[in-house]
Amino acid sequence: MILGHADLVTLLFGLGALLAVARLLGEAAARIGQPAVVGELIAGVLLGPTLLGAIAPELYAQLFPATGPAAVGLDAITRIGLVLFLLVAGIEVDLSSVFRQGRAAAFVSAGGMLVPFALGVGAGTLAPHLVGWEGRGDPLVFALFLGTALSISALPVIAKTLMDLRLFRSDLGMLVIASAVVDDLTGWILFALLLAAIGRIQTDFSPAETVFATLAFAAGMLTAGRALLHRVLPGVQRLFGGPGGILGFSVALAFLGAAFTEWIGVHAIFGSFLVGVALGDSSHLREHTRATIHQFVSAIFAPLFFASVGLRIDFVRNFDPVLVLAILLIACAGKLLGCGVAARWSGMQWRESLAVGVGMNSRGAMEIVLGLLALRSGLIGERMFVALVVMALVTSMGSGPLMERILRRGRPRRFTDHLAEGAFLPRLEAASAEAAIRELAAAVCAGAGLDPAPVTRAVLEREETQSTALGAGIAAPHARVPGLAAPLVGLGVSPEGVDFDAPDGESARLVFLILTPEGDDASQIEILGDIARSLLDPETRERLRTAPTRAAVLAELKRAG
Amino acid sequence: MILGHADLVTLLFGLGALLAVARLLGEAAARIGQPAVVGELIAGVLLGPTLLGAIAPELYAQLFPATGPAAVGLDAITRIGLVLFLLVAGIEVDLSSVFRQGRAAAFVSAGGMLVPFALGVGAGTLAPHLVGWEGRGDPLVFALFLGTALSISALPVIAKTLMDLRLFRSDLGMLVIASAVVDDLTGWILFALLLAAIGRIQTDFSPAETVFATLAFAAGMLTAGRALLHRVLPGVQRLFGGPGGILGFSVALAFLGAAFTEWIGVHAIFGSFLVGVALGDSSHLREHTRATIHQFVSAIFAPLFFASVGLRIDFVRNFDPVLVLAILLIACAGKLLGCGVAARWSGMQWRESLAVGVGMNSRGAMEIVLGLLALRSGLIGERMFVALVVMALVTSMGSGPLMERILRRGRPRRFTDHLAEGAFLPRLEAASAEAAIRELAAAVCAGAGLDPAPVTRAVLEREETQSTALGAGIAAPHARVPGLAAPLVGLGVSPEGVDFDAPDGESARLVFLILTPEGDDASQIEILGDIARSLLDPETRERLRTAPTRAAVLAELKRAG
Repeated sequence: MILGHADLVTLLFGLGALLAVARLLGEAAARIGQPAVVGELIAGVLLGPTLLGAIAPELYAQLFPATGPAAVGLDAITRIGLVLFLLVAGIEVDLSSVFRQGRAAAFVSAGGMLVPFALGVGAGTLAPHLVGWEGRGDPLVFALFLGTALSISALPVIAKTLMDLRLFRSDLGMLVIASAVVDDLTGWILFALLLAAIGRIQTDFSPAETVFATLAFAAGMLTAGRALLHRVLPGVQRLFGGPGGILGFSVALAFLGAAFTEWIGVHAIFGSFLVGVALGDSSHLREHTRATIHQFVSAIFAPLFFASVGLRIDFVRNFDPVLVLAILLIACAGKLLGCGVAARWSGMQWRESLAVGVGMNSRGAMEIVLGLLALRSGLIGERMFVALVVMALVTSMGSGPLMERILRRGRPRRFTDHLAEGAFLPRLEAASAEAAIRELAAAVCAGAGLDPAPVTRAVLEREETQSTALGAGIAAPHARVPGLAAPLVGLGVSPEGVDFDAPDGESARLVFLILTPEGDDASQIEILGDIARSLLDPETRERLRTAPTRAAVLAELKRAG
Repeated sequence: MILGHADLVTLLFGLGALLAVARLLGEAAARIGQPAVVGELIAGVLLGPTLLGAIAPELYAQLFPATGPAAVGLDAITRIGLVLFLLVAGIEVDLSSVFRQGRAAAFVSAGGMLVPFALGVGAGTLAPHLVGWEGRGDPLVFALFLGTALSISALPVIAKTLMDLRLFRSDLGMLVIASAVVDDLTGWILFALLLAAIGRIQTDFSPAETVFATLAFAAGMLTAGRALLHRVLPGVQRLFGGPGGILGFSVALAFLGAAFTEWIGVHAIFGSFLVGVALGDSSHLREHTRATIHQFVSAIFAPLFFASVGLRIDFVRNFDPVLVLAILLIACAGKLLGCGVAARWSGMQWRESLAVGVGMNSRGAMEIVLGLLALRSGLIGERMFVALVVMALVTSMGSGPLMERILRRGRPRRFTDHLAEGAFLPRLEAASAEAAIRELAAAVCAGAGLDPAPVTRAVLEREETQSTALGAGIAAPHARVPGLAAPLVGLGVSPEGVDFDAPDGESARLVFLILTPEGDDASQIEILGDIARSLLDPETRERLRTAPTRAAVLAELKRAG
């Protein structure tokens, strides 16, 4: 028996308390529109040296001892949690959508990488003490780390923010996500290389060997590994019958990948992140498996890990206001400038470009993980770590409300304003997504005196890049139409449901067709958002499905508010 | 940093290897119709001292060191896995179904408890050396432990076997499950009391205090705790928005319950098991939450735990054939006799009574957990532990095939043999389960010249005790009808689907009504099983839903084979 009776009591009470408080505050954060990670971190601060350790040091020491088997157990569990969190983050990375976004994504991600990196390295070289260098180690290494830390993105937080704003499947959302994917991937590879180059982890390998192995592993996973997994997954799915088959396979693979990267001298999470990227890109990884692992990790392991971050550091004593402000300013300047200008160059309007910059500015959980690893490997001190955490929280918390503010000025437009007579089809005959689009486009164009052929083509092309299904039986195919003066909306009800490849697998019974003037991104986003918001209530969806006329639709939506 | 670089590499490689092999062999076991736990245990035997330790002792020592931070980490993770496994096992316990089964369940569970317990205590007292007493400690304590170990059931394995045989929702299946619930609950309380009474765990409490606290906790959780959770869950669901809300809440509660019971001096898993029972009994715990936690635990944590069981013990060296045979014989004799005779007394036919006895005989995972705890607290030695494990595996592996053999003799009956002309309704008008049953019963009774009123009443009464939905859009309401000479089957297709409270939440589009002669349990089970088997293929289900006539239904089922 390795963990004794008393150790097990300590470990279980500690885990229970940590998880309960982290979930509670995480949910509280979510309810005021903030990422859950904010609340989860605060849970650790409350149970850690900052609060509990200050007011009840004995209870703190008993719940979370610093050494001994219970401490090792908690450390092992939170580290496994981190490995699983990065697996999920990797699964969310959609490499193919990056290629689809093409030039704009290349611009924005390059801008979002190069400008913050240059600012970070510059500040670290010119004024190292101002930005947290504590006189230990090579200031160049510190400057390189700062550059990397500022250029990284927080894909999970960005994705969550865009989903909350109902922008995830809009063109602007897809651009931000694609760029964040590139920055995330590059940032982590840079960080891994940096760790390897300075040989800070004690391994059997020379820094050069580690760098080579890291690059080879990353390149291999993103090309051959990705293709191999895509080919192997159907077999695995056949071999492992139940829904848990792929789940166990993915987690075992993540453990092995993590073990490998840790072994060659970069951090374990780099391995599980790349395993996640390679897995998540395969269309054979079923939505159900993604959802199960995502839910379990974000309800159990992520809260445990982020709460545990606060357990070892005193956030009050290590809070240095000048440093926090300096880091925050450089961080925001880098992303807003880099991404905003790049977005404008790639042809977007100023308002949307600013929204892209604000969206890319969230650092969230990823920055905290990076900071923790840097702290553990001695690259930075506790003051700098606290500054990075605060910067990550502030940028994540600000991004949602700011984007909303920038994109939605004045009275929000209702989609019903653009639903013309004749554009409501109470019984779609189509049995496929394509047929449904054709049927709706014909009706909408007939009413507006447009040629349906080019409109249909544009909508189908958009649909091909990524499904516009919103889930819950709703799909919203859309396109920009040159020469249109105002938006046009059509609504068709399919009694049997049409398969739009929805994230939740539900076939679409309410199909909205949205046509907006070219260049007017805001109206597309507003209409999409309004549809999503108006149909949150299942009862409203149910009633729309049986509405006989356009007038009944408008009345129902007015009633629902 | 508590776990160093080398420790983390070891821990991750160990976890990855353990999980990969355990899942592989677990799935292999499942494919030959055996419980996954069989394969998972064998994975540990292969990677443990029995095989890997014997042929490559260095690799074994490197992957799974016996001491040091990596060993503590692995121990912590597998113990947390065990706590979560017992939470899931507890959630599967349905106390209300026990009350519904009434007298028969009381008989069978009492028989399944008392006879094995008496046999165990008797053998332990009369011939302690034959049944594994190794001369250490009080032989009476050993005899009491043996009695408890033999009387315990393996609810998860039994439930899985019944599901595999499509008997889970039959009356026989419900009786077996209800009796297993009672035996499980009583067995664990007995074991907790035994541990407490001998004061084997070093706590701050006297044995008397521990016994009192254990009984108070168990009684409290099963009454007030259960009621409180049922009342609190909707609020928790509202408070914690996402699907992960209840998940985090449940797991935190399980950790705290486990910490409490470990603290008072009985094992941690007793606490999480009771938390699971109290939670699982609430109708507010959504099917989705159950499914997520079940999947994650059975795909990750259960395999890790059961594989880790084999990691520390040499199964070859500690295999004592005489002891294994003795334990196996007493174990089978106790359950077969106890449950079989009790089932016959409660009014079942001999063949079904024997099937009940065989079903209750599986010991599976629960016996292994109990044995491990007894081994760790010094109650038994390694030889006895190996004997218990072998007994658990053999009884679990034998139970499925044997039950099938006993219940299904000769040519399997097809349900189509009993689907009369006029008993196929291609368009049910009913919008509720009750209306669908009335509609179908009217059609079937009209064809057979029966009075529909008592038949409908019997089917509705049966439906009230537990939903007969099989999932995948199929429901099979059924009842025994006095005076019937041969079974009658009706089939109705509902275009819109009818809510039968299915385990997967899908509304039923194919509703089968099954009426069987009173006393002929076998035909009910055979017809239910045949329906489930015939409709496994989604395409068959799809075609039946659009079949215009009874002839088309028969042709389609003939085609599907």
